[in-house]
Amino acid sequence: MLMKRRVELYDTTLRDGSQMEGISFSLEDKLKITEKLDEFGIHYIEGGWPGSNPKDIQYFKAVRDLPLENAKIAAFGSTRRPRLRPEEDPNLNALVESEAPIATIFGKSWDLHVTEALRTTLENNIQMIIDSIEYLRDHGMVVFYDAEHFFDGYRENPEYAMKTIKAAEEAGAERIVLADTNGGSLPSFIKEVVEKVKEEVKTPLGIHAHNDSELAVANSLIAFEAGVVQIQGTINGYGERCGNANLISIIPALELKYGVEVVGKERLRKLKELAHFVAELANMEIPRNQPYVGDSAFAHKGGVHVSAVLKNPRTYEHIDPELVGNRRKVVVSELSGRSNLIYKAKELGIELEERDIKRIVEEIKKLEFEGYHFEAAEASLELLIERLRGRYKPFFELERARVITEIFQGQPPISEANVVVRVNSRRVHTTAEGNGPVNALDLALRKALTKFYPELKEIKLVDYKVRVLGSEKGTAAKVRVLVQTSDGKKTWGTVGASTNIIEASLNAIMESMEYWLMKEREKDEK
Amino acid sequence: MLMKRRVELYDTTLRDGSQMEGISFSLEDKLKITEKLDEFGIHYIEGGWPGSNPKDIQYFKAVRDLPLENAKIAAFGSTRRPRLRPEEDPNLNALVESEAPIATIFGKSWDLHVTEALRTTLENNIQMIIDSIEYLRDHGMVVFYDAEHFFDGYRENPEYAMKTIKAAEEAGAERIVLADTNGGSLPSFIKEVVEKVKEEVKTPLGIHAHNDSELAVANSLIAFEAGVVQIQGTINGYGERCGNANLISIIPALELKYGVEVVGKERLRKLKELAHFVAELANMEIPRNQPYVGDSAFAHKGGVHVSAVLKNPRTYEHIDPELVGNRRKVVVSELSGRSNLIYKAKELGIELEERDIKRIVEEIKKLEFEGYHFEAAEASLELLIERLRGRYKPFFELERARVITEIFQGQPPISEANVVVRVNSRRVHTTAEGNGPVNALDLALRKALTKFYPELKEIKLVDYKVRVLGSEKGTAAKVRVLVQTSDGKKTWGTVGASTNIIEASLNAIMESMEYWLMKEREKDEK
Repeated sequence: MLMKRRVELYDTTLRDGSQMEGISFSLEDKLKITEKLDEFGIHYIEGGWPGSNPKDIQYFKAVRDLPLENAKIAAFGSTRRPRLRPEEDPNLNALVESEAPIATIFGKSWDLHVTEALRTTLENNIQMIIDSIEYLRDHGMVVFYDAEHFFDGYRENPEYAMKTIKAAEEAGAERIVLADTNGGSLPSFIKEVVEKVKEEVKTPLGIHAHNDSELAVANSLIAFEAGVVQIQGTINGYGERCGNANLISIIPALELKYGVEVVGKERLRKLKELAHFVAELANMEIPRNQPYVGDSAFAHKGGVHVSAVLKNPRTYEHIDPELVGNRRKVVVSELSGRSNLIYKAKELGIELEERDIKRIVEEIKKLEFEGYHFEAAEASLELLIERLRGRYKPFFELERARVITEIFQGQPPISEANVVVRVNSRRVHTTAEGNGPVNALDLALRKALTKFYPELKEIKLVDYKVRVLGSEKGTAAKVRVLVQTSDGKKTWGTVGASTNIIEASLNAIMESMEYWLMKEREKDEK
Repeated sequence: MLMKRRVELYDTTLRDGSQMEGISFSLEDKLKITEKLDEFGIHYIEGGWPGSNPKDIQYFKAVRDLPLENAKIAAFGSTRRPRLRPEEDPNLNALVESEAPIATIFGKSWDLHVTEALRTTLENNIQMIIDSIEYLRDHGMVVFYDAEHFFDGYRENPEYAMKTIKAAEEAGAERIVLADTNGGSLPSFIKEVVEKVKEEVKTPLGIHAHNDSELAVANSLIAFEAGVVQIQGTINGYGERCGNANLISIIPALELKYGVEVVGKERLRKLKELAHFVAELANMEIPRNQPYVGDSAFAHKGGVHVSAVLKNPRTYEHIDPELVGNRRKVVVSELSGRSNLIYKAKELGIELEERDIKRIVEEIKKLEFEGYHFEAAEASLELLIERLRGRYKPFFELERARVITEIFQGQPPISEANVVVRVNSRRVHTTAEGNGPVNALDLALRKALTKFYPELKEIKLVDYKVRVLGSEKGTAAKVRVLVQTSDGKKTWGTVGASTNIIEASLNAIMESMEYWLMKEREKDEK
């Protein structure tokens, strides 16, 4: 599909997005995000609601000094209060004082809201819309009218809903944005209503969808197909409750599926970067499975998929991951077979011989059945491959380990570990205390090994995760331990599994050290 | 909208869902999920791919003994290989040997796949579809035919795509499932294609959508509107890459927005419970903003919304949260702590006095800050409340506990625990060996306490979970242990938190016993 259509992107991450539980942007965050959105080619950036809090007033002052290239800044607010004249309304005056070129104001389209929430008459609500738009225009602002709850209102009283937006049109609003504020509308209903509105309203339309039914992206795209010009949304779909329409999914659909130029192909390659940048400032993690930009969005696990993707990526990829700045990822697991392993080994720089492949695949399947899991533990996978190929020469042997934890009533617990390690023909016995039994073991092992490999001081554990498998067996269940270790430059993952948490942890920790020593030796050999 | 339409739900969490990076279900997990899905009213449960791994073969054996009420079990596989006769094909024979009543097999609809991935002729592919379906039917199986990449295939070569499903129809497939395998299709295209297929194919249709474009729920609902009978998906949308269509969002849309009876209103109230149950076994967290079932799906922050919602919930809620087992959440200051506590205490049958409330709220806040979490540990909460009100009389005191784990090279690890417990003026010292340190402690503690409270033999740990908090501190991080205990009639949860996993576990285990003893004493006093 190739469309010569104009589309405007209107981002409200800084206003509606910041209503999400857990998000709280500082003024600096908001300015940084504004610059990034501008760079990326977003057309309108809603910076805040100056009438609602002092941080937003400051934002509108500060943003005037940003040298923006593409974006226009919009300030958000509402129509005047039922019993105030516009010039008396602090909310409208805050919009004017923001000096933003655009004011986006919301008003009521749903009769229920007018009578129950505003407690005024249907006629006065219409007058409020007209007065507010005219007042802002008289002060030189471009006005976008946001018809709150338009779809719910239309469902219950279509005549009245239509009347409110016609009033906005006559008062001079330059966009009329239809909002599915509660996020409850179905795509087919959105289509029907947008088409009806287009018959009666000439002003360019917008869509503002929420994700309460997991339909916000679809509803935005369907409204676009039905003739809407402006799409409102937020980065990563942040927003109150279940969030707003996710621009990070909408933009590539427009560019790559509808063939509409929105930000251009060059900028589109920074989509993943943009998503992660905003997530970072919002202190949120990007889910691995987030469409287009998650780390696993183009991950292939099933054996059938992998072999086909290697022959021709189109077979299992809806778009080329590089177009949105992402990349393909092949995952090795029990579900996969030969081709995943071969691909993965290549990534690790290992050329596998035919006679090794079968043995390694079988060993992986066996271990995964026992509770191992190599997806997040590629270092353990590499060690396994090297061991089975006979390429791994051990750096040390653990003869024995013991860890004791003692708890005395009313006192903090004590954990102490002993290990006996052999390196070549030397035998070392060390002991250490820790915060807990695993920490004690980690410390005792390091004490022993740094005598032979002092460079081990450079590495440290950065993440430690425990998962109980088949937990219905209570405390006799099996556990899997995942460890992430870093040398300050790179990070690698290892895994251990056992019914005994101490053994599982010890194995994962030992492998984290063995992996790093192996890599250091490889460097020396080059 | 009220529709008298038949809809079938086909769940593939155990097969397609388990392809998600990070998910690895044990055999027990798979059986438990099967029971839960059956209870919830899912019509078909795809249990696995018996031709691909040993765990799935075991599953199909074990599942025959489950007393299922609603669901039929399906085994997944593919059409025969290009150069094998059906009776020689190990994959088809694994389906027959699974003894599942239904075989769902996928075949190619996209000419590109036939020539590039399968490397065979378009004619042979048609023959493979026919042979495979006939072979499975001859062995008494009902066959669902999954037309892989149907939409992509149709886009490029509609005649051939249509030919493949007509062949499946003639060979006797009882459902033809149209798959958007790469998740790249737009809703309007899905609608167009389903309508075209319906004109030419009489067999009931299904839809199998993936979420690569954040459109899987919309595409499934739109296919339903266009006449599809079966909707395939997974719980919470788990699945490879960006996941499958999320049944947790599709089911309430069908029930509450289309007015179609799918699982019934009673079961729908367990939607949130189902979503969390599967997430727990998948070791995934439910995102707070997940539609319908996330903890914040009906959370209201800030003034306008809250006051309107309190006047009339419909103003900012698309459905009543209780219909899906969720609840409204008003995010306000510490006042919400108070009212939550009073509400919760009432549920537990405790009438709190004014002077206790403040102290308890503060203690809970302090403990939650330290890593405790009472949502899944109401027994610990109840003990806490009773302790702070001075109503709890202790049953025993732990004087000290010690646990030793020893690992000798090449031998299984040994864990041994000692505990000293005082009951009234008597002091008992016991020791026990276990599978791991926590199991050893649990056994030693029971040995000691059953001398005084022999009825403790009736209770047993049924679940044990460990979560590492602030895991970036490596093995010195804090851990939270959640324990579920059962007396065969009811199950209760307790929690412990510490930097020492042994201490955290011991506390959770002790509380599980204390809680039960307290409840037994209350019974006696009545």
